[in-house]
Amino acid sequence: MGIDLKTEYKEYHTPYLWLENNHTPFMKPECILPIPSDSDFSIFNLPFGIFSSQKWSPRIGIRLGDFVIHIEELNRAGHLKDVEMKNDGLFLSPTLNPLIEAGPGCWRTLRNRVQLLFSVGSEQITLNENAERFLIPVSEVTMHLPVQIGDYTDFYSSEYHAANVGAMFRDPQNPLLPNWKHIPVGYHGRSSSIVVSGTNFHRPKGQIKPPTAEIPAFSPSKQMDMELETAFVVSRNTQMGSSIGVDEAEDYIFGMMLFNDWSARDLQSWEYVPLGPFLGKNFCSSVSPWIVTMDALKPFRVPMDAEMNPEVLPYLKQKQRWTYDIHLEAELITQKGDKKVISKTNQKYLYWSMNQQLAHHTINGCPMRVGDLLASGTISGPTEDSLGSLLEITKRGQNPIVFPNGEKRNFLEDGDSISIKGFSEKEGIRVGFGEVTGMVLSSL
Amino acid sequence: MGIDLKTEYKEYHTPYLWLENNHTPFMKPECILPIPSDSDFSIFNLPFGIFSSQKWSPRIGIRLGDFVIHIEELNRAGHLKDVEMKNDGLFLSPTLNPLIEAGPGCWRTLRNRVQLLFSVGSEQITLNENAERFLIPVSEVTMHLPVQIGDYTDFYSSEYHAANVGAMFRDPQNPLLPNWKHIPVGYHGRSSSIVVSGTNFHRPKGQIKPPTAEIPAFSPSKQMDMELETAFVVSRNTQMGSSIGVDEAEDYIFGMMLFNDWSARDLQSWEYVPLGPFLGKNFCSSVSPWIVTMDALKPFRVPMDAEMNPEVLPYLKQKQRWTYDIHLEAELITQKGDKKVISKTNQKYLYWSMNQQLAHHTINGCPMRVGDLLASGTISGPTEDSLGSLLEITKRGQNPIVFPNGEKRNFLEDGDSISIKGFSEKEGIRVGFGEVTGMVLSSL
Repeated sequence: MGIDLKTEYKEYHTPYLWLENNHTPFMKPECILPIPSDSDFSIFNLPFGIFSSQKWSPRIGIRLGDFVIHIEELNRAGHLKDVEMKNDGLFLSPTLNPLIEAGPGCWRTLRNRVQLLFSVGSEQITLNENAERFLIPVSEVTMHLPVQIGDYTDFYSSEYHAANVGAMFRDPQNPLLPNWKHIPVGYHGRSSSIVVSGTNFHRPKGQIKPPTAEIPAFSPSKQMDMELETAFVVSRNTQMGSSIGVDEAEDYIFGMMLFNDWSARDLQSWEYVPLGPFLGKNFCSSVSPWIVTMDALKPFRVPMDAEMNPEVLPYLKQKQRWTYDIHLEAELITQKGDKKVISKTNQKYLYWSMNQQLAHHTINGCPMRVGDLLASGTISGPTEDSLGSLLEITKRGQNPIVFPNGEKRNFLEDGDSISIKGFSEKEGIRVGFGEVTGMVLSSL
Repeated sequence: MGIDLKTEYKEYHTPYLWLENNHTPFMKPECILPIPSDSDFSIFNLPFGIFSSQKWSPRIGIRLGDFVIHIEELNRAGHLKDVEMKNDGLFLSPTLNPLIEAGPGCWRTLRNRVQLLFSVGSEQITLNENAERFLIPVSEVTMHLPVQIGDYTDFYSSEYHAANVGAMFRDPQNPLLPNWKHIPVGYHGRSSSIVVSGTNFHRPKGQIKPPTAEIPAFSPSKQMDMELETAFVVSRNTQMGSSIGVDEAEDYIFGMMLFNDWSARDLQSWEYVPLGPFLGKNFCSSVSPWIVTMDALKPFRVPMDAEMNPEVLPYLKQKQRWTYDIHLEAELITQKGDKKVISKTNQKYLYWSMNQQLAHHTINGCPMRVGDLLASGTISGPTEDSLGSLLEITKRGQNPIVFPNGEKRNFLEDGDSISIKGFSEKEGIRVGFGEVTGMVLSSL
């Protein structure tokens, strides 16, 4: 029992090393479970989450195909002996924070070990003998918010989005504000209203003042929108006063999730001057339940499309600007059951990288904590079918989305759901996020 | 051992009931300890905090005069038998959150009990016999951040301040934005950079673009400012989707602290459009260590000065708008040791009440959590000596503060400290906050 990863890597064909080393001298690994080729949760992925079931209280799991791997059970069976743990109950934690805080010596070793254990050839676990003990069908689990989020920041890093919004609300000839290309603009959001996928919410009420009205009226929002985003989770605490260098920022990122920054446009447009969005955002924001690690995404790194122009200040200048080729799409499902994919976009369309976001956020000494969530802002692409919000898709509600059966939507109606999905794929290898969903319920 | 508060209230002269009942039929209570009449921490106050010492790890204490009452020791001696506790280790918690979450049956009973125990006439504790066991001199303790802050919101609720800033940066004839008198405008701040009084911080660096420059430059802030504020702590969790009624909001407030929202004006003015303040604020914000309960402040309630004009929407309309007569002042202490009181203001100058802030914050269904911090925004008053920020006092640095020895300040220099103090006083009874201090250190 217990494989020495350092030496056994040479014998076993681990997915991580297979991809890292341009496929040689390792053979492409196979999972001992049958996993469909279009599953987001291949043996190459192995994202972390918090699950519970009728039998188990909330605790740490890793997703593989249609199963959740029960990590504490693997541990009890003696399969995780070389994973550095600070305390025995680590895998029973109801959030991932202690695991992430334990450092890569813990979570990276754990994930690599799980890849090995569930790969053909490791012969540590065989499906017939004892795999069932460690595997729980996803149909039997409830997923929870994976991290306790200390602080949540939302950026505004898609140039296409910022320009679309600027053209609508300000100046079509000059849509970007003067600071936009110098600063990865962002603002503080609210942690308490971040919920896991599948949590529905009531349409927010508040003050609305149409441009023609003298004074605001009280009403449920009439302009319920979504924002297609991704978010990343901070992996290390920093001291107040210290900054993260732009080229070392990757060492501070644990993994990524899909993010829907639900927005009440009418509340937002009346309240946001001069201190930014507030009640138009903090009624609900949704994350996908599985955190896909940066280790799993590394094979899908691509240089960023956008060039930095004008040049940025040195603290934002990366030796090489990387992003990730993550296909993203949003689907609107009406109460009647009509469905339409309303956006197909990609992480790589962002102007500012995650490294730049972290470097900027800490350049003034702002302390980061494990579990902090930094979201991208709406990810719009260059084309009409790659816009990340209804505001942009319908041009402030003027060009409604038309469904095949004739239903129309300017903004979201009660009973409407949004499902955002995302995955990376390359050479037949797929690493995905599953989805983040939520439904707008009627106002209370 | 153990006094039945319900019946004993009739015999003992508890401060709480003495004030609540217009001084009759109770006599004015006296503390068994000698407490100077100008102490903020009279027997009428008894604020909660988290202390540690060479002997004790961080845990819950109550301040009385120049002593910290060690609550767990009182408990072990059997003096807290009628305090509802959910678990035995409650008073050993390193934050006040579990105590607050336990509800007023716990913390209110606890505070009333402590008042009784340390009042002349209760005869439960006498100074000579055993009081020393429960009392630790403040000179021997280190104070810690009293609550784990889930989310922090900063309002902008002083009309004088908003108008002063609006006149400087926008239109002197029309200084308030159209939404200001309809909405208690606020924004999300960052929890991770909130520190307890006495924590110094390094001058933040970042992007600065003077109006005359084409592009921003990188520099330590040259416009380091402070903001004199108060903040309150939320006492109850609310569900996502629910709202707090404006007249019941007091039941959701545990107590208050002094707050210094340090601000780098040059970073702020370049970054804040369109999403609000970010790096100009999140490098450091300071709170005083003792949370003064709303119970202790109740005798100092006064009707709010400002009239709501224009009328507000019904969800913001209070039957009676209360505030608290809290004298506030800020002192600037230079590195050379020169001191000057730069502002004398009062909580009652605010336009929006704490009830209105909470009602507005939750009207859209935003969930509150125990320990959330809601700050007032800079509290400026109507006169030149009651302005709560250097920005206003020096008119954007144009009219420097002059010290008796000739030193001048437009903004804060390295080595400068700010001390904010606050107290209420009435009929010889004083309930105060102590102070919140911090020093600007040179940029790293």
